[in-house]
Amino acid sequence: MSGSQESMGCFRQIKRCSSSDARLGVLSTRHGEIKTPVFMPVGTQATVKALSPSELLDAGAQVILGNTYHLYLRPGHKLIKEMGGLHQFMGWSRPILTDSGGFQVFSLSEFRKITEEGVEFRSHIDGSYHKLTPELAIEIQEALGSDIMMCLDTCIPYPCEKADAGKATNLTTRWARRSLKARKREELLLFPIVQGGMYPDLRREHTLQLLEMPFDGYALGGLSVGEPKELFFEMVQVSRPLIPDRFPIYVMGVGTPEDLVECVHLGVDMFDCVMPSRNARNGMLFTETGHIVIKNARYARDQRPIDESCSCYTCRHFSRAYLRHLFLSRELLAYRLNTIHNIHYYLKLMERMRQAIAVGRFLGFRREFYQKRAGKTA
Amino acid sequence: MSGSQESMGCFRQIKRCSSSDARLGVLSTRHGEIKTPVFMPVGTQATVKALSPSELLDAGAQVILGNTYHLYLRPGHKLIKEMGGLHQFMGWSRPILTDSGGFQVFSLSEFRKITEEGVEFRSHIDGSYHKLTPELAIEIQEALGSDIMMCLDTCIPYPCEKADAGKATNLTTRWARRSLKARKREELLLFPIVQGGMYPDLRREHTLQLLEMPFDGYALGGLSVGEPKELFFEMVQVSRPLIPDRFPIYVMGVGTPEDLVECVHLGVDMFDCVMPSRNARNGMLFTETGHIVIKNARYARDQRPIDESCSCYTCRHFSRAYLRHLFLSRELLAYRLNTIHNIHYYLKLMERMRQAIAVGRFLGFRREFYQKRAGKTA
Repeated sequence: MSGSQESMGCFRQIKRCSSSDARLGVLSTRHGEIKTPVFMPVGTQATVKALSPSELLDAGAQVILGNTYHLYLRPGHKLIKEMGGLHQFMGWSRPILTDSGGFQVFSLSEFRKITEEGVEFRSHIDGSYHKLTPELAIEIQEALGSDIMMCLDTCIPYPCEKADAGKATNLTTRWARRSLKARKREELLLFPIVQGGMYPDLRREHTLQLLEMPFDGYALGGLSVGEPKELFFEMVQVSRPLIPDRFPIYVMGVGTPEDLVECVHLGVDMFDCVMPSRNARNGMLFTETGHIVIKNARYARDQRPIDESCSCYTCRHFSRAYLRHLFLSRELLAYRLNTIHNIHYYLKLMERMRQAIAVGRFLGFRREFYQKRAGKTA
Repeated sequence: MSGSQESMGCFRQIKRCSSSDARLGVLSTRHGEIKTPVFMPVGTQATVKALSPSELLDAGAQVILGNTYHLYLRPGHKLIKEMGGLHQFMGWSRPILTDSGGFQVFSLSEFRKITEEGVEFRSHIDGSYHKLTPELAIEIQEALGSDIMMCLDTCIPYPCEKADAGKATNLTTRWARRSLKARKREELLLFPIVQGGMYPDLRREHTLQLLEMPFDGYALGGLSVGEPKELFFEMVQVSRPLIPDRFPIYVMGVGTPEDLVECVHLGVDMFDCVMPSRNARNGMLFTETGHIVIKNARYARDQRPIDESCSCYTCRHFSRAYLRHLFLSRELLAYRLNTIHNIHYYLKLMERMRQAIAVGRFLGFRREFYQKRAGKTA
C-alpha cells in the first residue's frame, strides 16, 4: 500500500552527531519541509494562545500543533472543513500536526469510558456526550487537513499496574491498525503512539509491533506524566534505538529546555509542549541562565530586557519594568509579549541545537547550555 | 509669560469647510505634529488594551491618551519618570495626551470628597487613601512627560441642580488657575476643561473665564454623561464659537462614529473614547454600514472579513467565522484582532473626514456616511 511507500519518503536524516544520537533531518509535508529537531508551539483552539500567525512566523515556527479534541468540540471539524480546512481557517500556511484527541479526553472531560470500540466522554464545555473512535479521530484530522495526524491511543496513568498497562497498550495497537484502515488521505502523514507505561519490555514490544505497520513516523506517548526523570529518559532510550533512521521520532508533550536538550541528545526529532506559552501567561520567562518570575519586586525598576541575548520583539522593545507593570495590571498585552518571548526562546534553542549538530559540536553546545544555567540567574 | 506665547503657536488651522464649521488643523507637540481632526485611542495603563505600539502605528494612530489616575496608582509616576518617562516606558514615540485623573476618581474610586484643595479618594486597587490636587495632577503629568496635559476638573453628574453645577464650575476655574501656576515644563501643552453642566449660561461663562488664561487649547468636559444627544450637541455649540481659531478644541470621552462626524461638523478637533477598544473586547465590531455582533450564529460559516472595505490586518487575514470561534472560545487573540479592527475603523473614519475637508466636500462625506448606515447592516 502507498502508506508504506510514503513512510519511506517523508523523512530524510541529514547528519548524525559523531558522539551522540543527536541528528539533523528534514520532514517533508504537504505544507513544506520541517527541519528537525523541531519544537511545535501548541495551537489548541486554532490559535497559539495570544499570538498571531505573523508573530509565529517571526519567531521562526516551522510547524504548529492543533488539538483534535478541542477543534472537534468547538467549532467542529465539519465547520472547519467547510471553511477550507484548518490552515485557511486560522491563517497559517506552514505545516500543522494534530494530536488524536485521546490525551485531552483523559485530562479534560468530566466522564470517560474506554471500550474496544473507542472512548466515550462528556464535553468539558457543555457536558454533551461523545464517542471518539480511531476511525473518527482520523476523519476529524482529515477534515482539518492536518499535515501530520496521530492515531488514537489510550493514556496510561503513572503509576499503573503492569497488567493494566499491557491491556491498554494492546488496545492502542489494535486502534493503530484501525487508524491505518480508516485513513483516506494518503498525502497526510500518520504516526502511531508508542505506549507501554513505564515497563521497558512493554515499550519494546509495542514499538516493534507498531514498526510492523506502514506508518510515516513514530511518537512516544505516555511520558512526562509525573514519573521520575530517569524513568522518562529510560523509556525514550528503550524505543529510540529500535526505530530505523528513516522515521521521524516525536516525544509528545515534552518539555523543559533541559528535556529538549536531553531528548535531542538521545536522537528525538520532534517536540510539543504548552510550557513556553502557559508559563508566559503565568509570568515565568525563560532566559539563557534559567528563568525569571516577572512579578517579582526586584524587576520594578529593571530597565533591561528579559534576556539581553534575545532578539525577539519583546526584548527589542520593552523593559522588565514595563512587563512587570503589564503583568501586575493583568493587561492583555502582558500575555502576548511574554508568549512572544518564551516561544522565541524555545524555537531559538532548537535552532541552536540544529546549528551545533550541523557543525559537529552538539556535545559542546550541551555543555555550554548547562554551564550558563549553572551560573547565577538574572 | 511664555505659556501665552506657546498657546499662540501650538495649533494652526489649515482649512475650514465652506459650509460647516469642520476644519483641518495641525497641532504641534514635542513628539511631532498631529493632523486634526484626530481620534486618540485610549491607553489607560500604559497600553492600549490588547495592542502593541507597532499595531497602533500600523492603524495610523497619531497620538494616544494615557490615564493619570491609573498611572499614578500603578506603577506610579515617579517610577515611570525614573524609567525615562511614559513614552520610553511603553515604547511609544508619538505624542501622548494625559487626562487629569479627575474623571477616574469620580467613576472608579470607592470613596471621594471634594474640597477647595482637591479631591480625596481611595484607590480602586487596594483602598489606599490619596489626595489629588491641581498641583499634583500637573506634577504627575510632567513626570510622565505627557505632550498634552489636562487641568484637574470637577465632574458634574447629569442631572445636576444649577447651583451645584455653578459651584463645581467655579471650583474648576480656580483649579485651572492653580494648574497654570504649578506648571514647570512649559514645553508640555496644557488644556483646561470647560464644565458648566447642561446649563448654557454656565458653559458660556466658564468658556470665557478659561479663555482669559494662557492655555494652549481647550477641552469640553462633562459631556456624554447620560444626557440626551440634543443637549450634548447644544453644549458643544455654546462653547465652540467662543473659542478663537488659534486654539485646538477637544471634546473628551466622545464617542460613537456618528458623534465624531457631528462634532467634526461643529468644528471640534480632538476626541478620545474607549468605545472602539471596549466594544471590540465585547465582540461588537464597526463596519461602514453600522456594526456586527460577532458571536451571532449567523456568522458561524461566514467567510467574509468583518468589513469588506477594510484594510486592517484582521480583515486582510481572518473571516468572521474564525473571529466568532476565537470570541466564543475566549481566546486572547480574539480581543486583539477585534481591537485592531475597531481602532483601525475609527482612525480611518477620521482620515476620511480630513480628506473630505481638504477637498471641500465634508458635507458630501457626511451625507454618504449616513446613507451607508441607513442601508442594511451586514
